[in-house]
Amino acid sequence: MKKYNVAVVGATGMVGRTMLKILQERDFSIDKLYLYSSSRSAGTSIEFNNKKVTVEELTENSFSKEIDIAFFSAGSSTSLKYAQIASANGIVVIDNSSAFRMDKDIPLVVPEVNAHDITNHKGIISNPNCSTIQALVVLKPLHDKYKIKRIVFSTYQAVSGSGVNGIQDLERGLLGEPNTFYPHQIANNCLPHIDSFEENGYTKEELKMINETKKILHDDDLRITATTVRVPVYYSHSESINIEFENEFEINELKKVLEEAPGIIVLDNPKENLYPLPTEVAGKDEVFVGRIRKDYSVDCGINLWVVADNIRKGAATNAVQIAEEVIRNL
Amino acid sequence: MKKYNVAVVGATGMVGRTMLKILQERDFSIDKLYLYSSSRSAGTSIEFNNKKVTVEELTENSFSKEIDIAFFSAGSSTSLKYAQIASANGIVVIDNSSAFRMDKDIPLVVPEVNAHDITNHKGIISNPNCSTIQALVVLKPLHDKYKIKRIVFSTYQAVSGSGVNGIQDLERGLLGEPNTFYPHQIANNCLPHIDSFEENGYTKEELKMINETKKILHDDDLRITATTVRVPVYYSHSESINIEFENEFEINELKKVLEEAPGIIVLDNPKENLYPLPTEVAGKDEVFVGRIRKDYSVDCGINLWVVADNIRKGAATNAVQIAEEVIRNL
Repeated sequence: MKKYNVAVVGATGMVGRTMLKILQERDFSIDKLYLYSSSRSAGTSIEFNNKKVTVEELTENSFSKEIDIAFFSAGSSTSLKYAQIASANGIVVIDNSSAFRMDKDIPLVVPEVNAHDITNHKGIISNPNCSTIQALVVLKPLHDKYKIKRIVFSTYQAVSGSGVNGIQDLERGLLGEPNTFYPHQIANNCLPHIDSFEENGYTKEELKMINETKKILHDDDLRITATTVRVPVYYSHSESINIEFENEFEINELKKVLEEAPGIIVLDNPKENLYPLPTEVAGKDEVFVGRIRKDYSVDCGINLWVVADNIRKGAATNAVQIAEEVIRNL
Repeated sequence: MKKYNVAVVGATGMVGRTMLKILQERDFSIDKLYLYSSSRSAGTSIEFNNKKVTVEELTENSFSKEIDIAFFSAGSSTSLKYAQIASANGIVVIDNSSAFRMDKDIPLVVPEVNAHDITNHKGIISNPNCSTIQALVVLKPLHDKYKIKRIVFSTYQAVSGSGVNGIQDLERGLLGEPNTFYPHQIANNCLPHIDSFEENGYTKEELKMINETKKILHDDDLRITATTVRVPVYYSHSESINIEFENEFEINELKKVLEEAPGIIVLDNPKENLYPLPTEVAGKDEVFVGRIRKDYSVDCGINLWVVADNIRKGAATNAVQIAEEVIRNL
């Protein structure tokens, strides 16, 4: 079995560390592992498959080594500066930042949804936004079967989406200390503000959900709107998704479509108080869906409650799955 | 100035105590005050306008006294048992339970919206569900101006909506203790489950938002759907509201319509990170609205973020406002 040389850029961050965990869990076939970070975290030692690996400072020379796949998870500015250098050296970059997501020449991939798009990559593959990934795993089989006309997203997003800064701000708030990261206290609060605001009143997070969904489903005619909200939850994003279909559906058939689709666990038994919950989904790789019910306000509508671990399926797991697809295509 | 004899049923509960606070704040013209509770809480002493009032056990004889207005806030079973007895004795009952809300002979009133409906009362007036009240204050001026076609509600509801039981379950959860009230831990979680489930997969809370909205706006043709969710917040419900209008609108004009409507504070300046927040709205009587922006997925659509103190405007304040209208109509 061929082994690959892998680099993780942003190895000491929350997503980077989770990627390393998932690479081990999934027995990703690694020969040499290179871990990179900013100078601030360089020198940190991280255990991988029972060996200590020292994190090195990221420089332009980092990619002159024999590397097959580089996972980038150190923010857009790092990706903009180094991803092209890496890909020019023949390295396949899987980028978790938003830097290249809407670039029409760069595939934006959720493996359960559009794995095929990977075949067209030119050295960089983008990992979608966390709240987009989990929605898409559920939307894709429904779009294939019933054709989606319109989507209204309202999200309930965990603080870990902001990395360790978000976690610490919630911890501080619960101790009665003031926020230092979010613009307002997140403990005991809901902040309808994720990422920065655009001129049209939408946040970048909301526009990511709208635009990335259209790109991944290859359907610019989809009508989508979104309101994204940060809630005082550590791990797992939840989403209230309202969908209008072109075609009629039968509710039990729709549930079966979801049950049979890859990467989904249907958890929908209200009588037993069973529905997806952030605390129970945290640590899992699947997308959980429940509260599946007809929306009687339109002809062919449905309401769903969709929960996934935002650090795993929303970032690290999806990136590793992309890498697995890349290898499969070699 | 005429003074009124007032009774509060459920005086020791969270809403009952807040009603007493609001009656004092608004200088409600009270002669005699009677406080009632179950036998368990009877004997409690509550200070009102600098005098101690002893809470008495609620019995059938409680309403043989000279009482003008009785606020009921002790749950549906108490209202079903005693409200008719009170109104048969000539007392105007303002009922905070869901017992009579959908009874076509009983007005369901948000004073800023349909105060006129009070004139038809036959002794009982219903106070709507908390999440419905705050939505309606915002929906009414928009419906009048642009005619609402369809609404998609997703809510972020505070634990105080379940009274002291909800507060204590969140406190317990934050201390790492198990839940004893909600079916799952509420700390660090989102529960898509408020009130009980119906056969069609909706919760009663969701159906209340749908049905009460139609009744209050006197418009059975409105198309409404809802997903209601409990979040780890102590006070104030938040709502992501997506609205489709019949008629076109200009966004600045729509904002002005909201600014000029009664009971609303528009807080919508994203550049300054200003939008309604549960922690800042708690303790206030107005309904706060922000994140006002065009929904580009339909011809005449809008997204709103609406926050109000669920115990005050969502229950106690609205009930006292109804009483003020009743007096005005005498």
